[in-house]
Amino acid sequence: MNANPVFSLHIPTRILFGCGEIKKLATEKLPGKKAMIVISSGTSMRKYGYLDKVTSLLTENDVDSIVYDQILPNPTKRHVMEAAAICRERGCDFIIGLGGGSSIDSAKAIAVMACNTGDYWDYIPAGSGKGRAVTKALPIVAIPTTAGTGTEADPWTVITNEDVHEKIGFGNQHTFPTLSIIDPELMVSIPPHLTAYQGFDAFFHAAEGFIANCATPISDLYALEAIRLLYKYLPVAVKDGKNLKARAKVAWASTLAGLVESTSSCTSEHSMEHAMSAFHPELPHGAGLIAISEVYFETFRNDCMKRYMKMAEAMTQQKSNRPSDFIDALVRMQKACDVYGLQLSQFGVKEKDLPQMVQNARETMGALFTLDPRPLTDAEVLEIYQKSFK
Amino acid sequence: MNANPVFSLHIPTRILFGCGEIKKLATEKLPGKKAMIVISSGTSMRKYGYLDKVTSLLTENDVDSIVYDQILPNPTKRHVMEAAAICRERGCDFIIGLGGGSSIDSAKAIAVMACNTGDYWDYIPAGSGKGRAVTKALPIVAIPTTAGTGTEADPWTVITNEDVHEKIGFGNQHTFPTLSIIDPELMVSIPPHLTAYQGFDAFFHAAEGFIANCATPISDLYALEAIRLLYKYLPVAVKDGKNLKARAKVAWASTLAGLVESTSSCTSEHSMEHAMSAFHPELPHGAGLIAISEVYFETFRNDCMKRYMKMAEAMTQQKSNRPSDFIDALVRMQKACDVYGLQLSQFGVKEKDLPQMVQNARETMGALFTLDPRPLTDAEVLEIYQKSFK
Repeated sequence: MNANPVFSLHIPTRILFGCGEIKKLATEKLPGKKAMIVISSGTSMRKYGYLDKVTSLLTENDVDSIVYDQILPNPTKRHVMEAAAICRERGCDFIIGLGGGSSIDSAKAIAVMACNTGDYWDYIPAGSGKGRAVTKALPIVAIPTTAGTGTEADPWTVITNEDVHEKIGFGNQHTFPTLSIIDPELMVSIPPHLTAYQGFDAFFHAAEGFIANCATPISDLYALEAIRLLYKYLPVAVKDGKNLKARAKVAWASTLAGLVESTSSCTSEHSMEHAMSAFHPELPHGAGLIAISEVYFETFRNDCMKRYMKMAEAMTQQKSNRPSDFIDALVRMQKACDVYGLQLSQFGVKEKDLPQMVQNARETMGALFTLDPRPLTDAEVLEIYQKSFK
Repeated sequence: MNANPVFSLHIPTRILFGCGEIKKLATEKLPGKKAMIVISSGTSMRKYGYLDKVTSLLTENDVDSIVYDQILPNPTKRHVMEAAAICRERGCDFIIGLGGGSSIDSAKAIAVMACNTGDYWDYIPAGSGKGRAVTKALPIVAIPTTAGTGTEADPWTVITNEDVHEKIGFGNQHTFPTLSIIDPELMVSIPPHLTAYQGFDAFFHAAEGFIANCATPISDLYALEAIRLLYKYLPVAVKDGKNLKARAKVAWASTLAGLVESTSSCTSEHSMEHAMSAFHPELPHGAGLIAISEVYFETFRNDCMKRYMKMAEAMTQQKSNRPSDFIDALVRMQKACDVYGLQLSQFGVKEKDLPQMVQNARETMGALFTLDPRPLTDAEVLEIYQKSFK
């Protein structure tokens, strides 16, 4: 946010975007001959035929594949370690993440553990992790079937270590996907409430990345366009999941927000949500973010007023004179997506756990607090949780 | 420009941007141990100390270097071949282009010929070139000291074959720079008229890329931001070359316009200018573009009206209702930069040569005509030249 900022841009991922682009899997040069396809433990990848489509396109491309299908919505270290062992045993030379952020993030972590020794948490540079250096990983191909995480355009993987209640993001240049194929046609089957949760995850990647103190001219460009598109098209995609134009706009916004995560950073809103999910793995990430968002952004309203007004202008396409215009637009957008007023108590969070969550957020994802518009005290973090509780 | 467009994004270059960033040359991991530094035959790289700075930073980084200093403003195949031979003979393992587009483009072409056999024109896929496949090149580092070509963020290299009067752009994934360092402090010494010529080159990369029929959502984002920044800051940089904020904004706009060239394409305006420069190597590229620009953009005024209005809005930051608002803003910007009314006749072009230039533009860079908003007839191309002649 300096007048003459210093920044860098390096996104080595080859991104293919568009309806029907999944078919390119049959013709693109892929980074190996035997893939492990990582999917969730749910039914949708098989039910909607996405897994069959991917395996048959790989066969056309003369690539062999096996499937690992145990990934949970908040993916765990245990499954990463199990899949990596299978990967080595079966001689896979690249990993395909197919599905939502949980599957693609797991694919990245599996790619790391398939060619590094020890335990995944040995490499995590926060919480109880040991911070060993990761100097290699198998090549990764990302095929998202949801629009939200942006993981197809960033190096980050978020894994939960259940033993220690830690949900921590990690990544480096080796965990950028080599190739990402974003095909909005694979997203039409997402139900309305998940469309909204995921879309708001993307929205907050962009909004946090825009108010982060490490924002740059390139991340600003991606962020404001993602914010503009999501405000306009997310409510349409929530109401009519078959609207391919809206699905495509939301998918592109989500990828743009992933580019924001590669060029700026999330702020402490994400640390706070990770702490919530670490204790309540059944809480959808996007829902957790929505639940604390109004209070969270209210907290920084007077700390980067121009940036709030710019976000409001991107959303409403009208001149803004007050930072609260952004909060108002955020609330309108949540109402239009039928997710306004989510409360932590709805997801099994107990009021007595809140202080522990403050501590967890600091310990596991404390780095993001240093990127906030101004430093928050523990009392302020607790207050955000409390005001969002009910 | 489709409602549900299909497109790709892959820019493998690591871009470092900002005042003082040149010092990173001493600490970044570089792609080799012995560099050939390619500079122009002019005096500025030595006079302003840029060459000394680069060689001493390389020494700090334990990298050896030699200098090739013969590059002309419209760089020639002869020098590419000569430098590549020296490069092989002296065992250089990467190429640094330091200076304007001519030096960096030459560095790319030298990187190709340092590890491919035969003649550079054997690999050119247009004009009298033979179109042989290029499957490798030495790594390239780009250090621009001008703001205009965008070559630091695209794979393109434009070289003139004087024997056959052909100036042709060429490039592929191997000619993307590995690393580009854009330091606006290296640009403060550019005189006003060259600042304007170069800045308008960047402007037309963005404007052509925005009206090209292969424009995509990502190229549009880069293009409109480049157009916005150049309209606002190029006149400032022209009037006060020491204004580092304006220099930085113009440099960033030029890099953004390079990203446009990597994600969309120039249109026939560039083909037409290349034909002019092929016959008149003393004609600065940017000046040639400026000379034909008003008539050129007038020609397509009714073919992509919404896009003209969007460009006008990016420039004036006011609602536009007529495509001619863009032409008006373009003229205002050229007047503000003291380059309005340039005529081909000023640069030694003869009226009798114009039909030959039409033919040359088609033969050497005909592909860009297929990306125009609508197909131009030869009569229309000739008319653009004629109306711009005097």
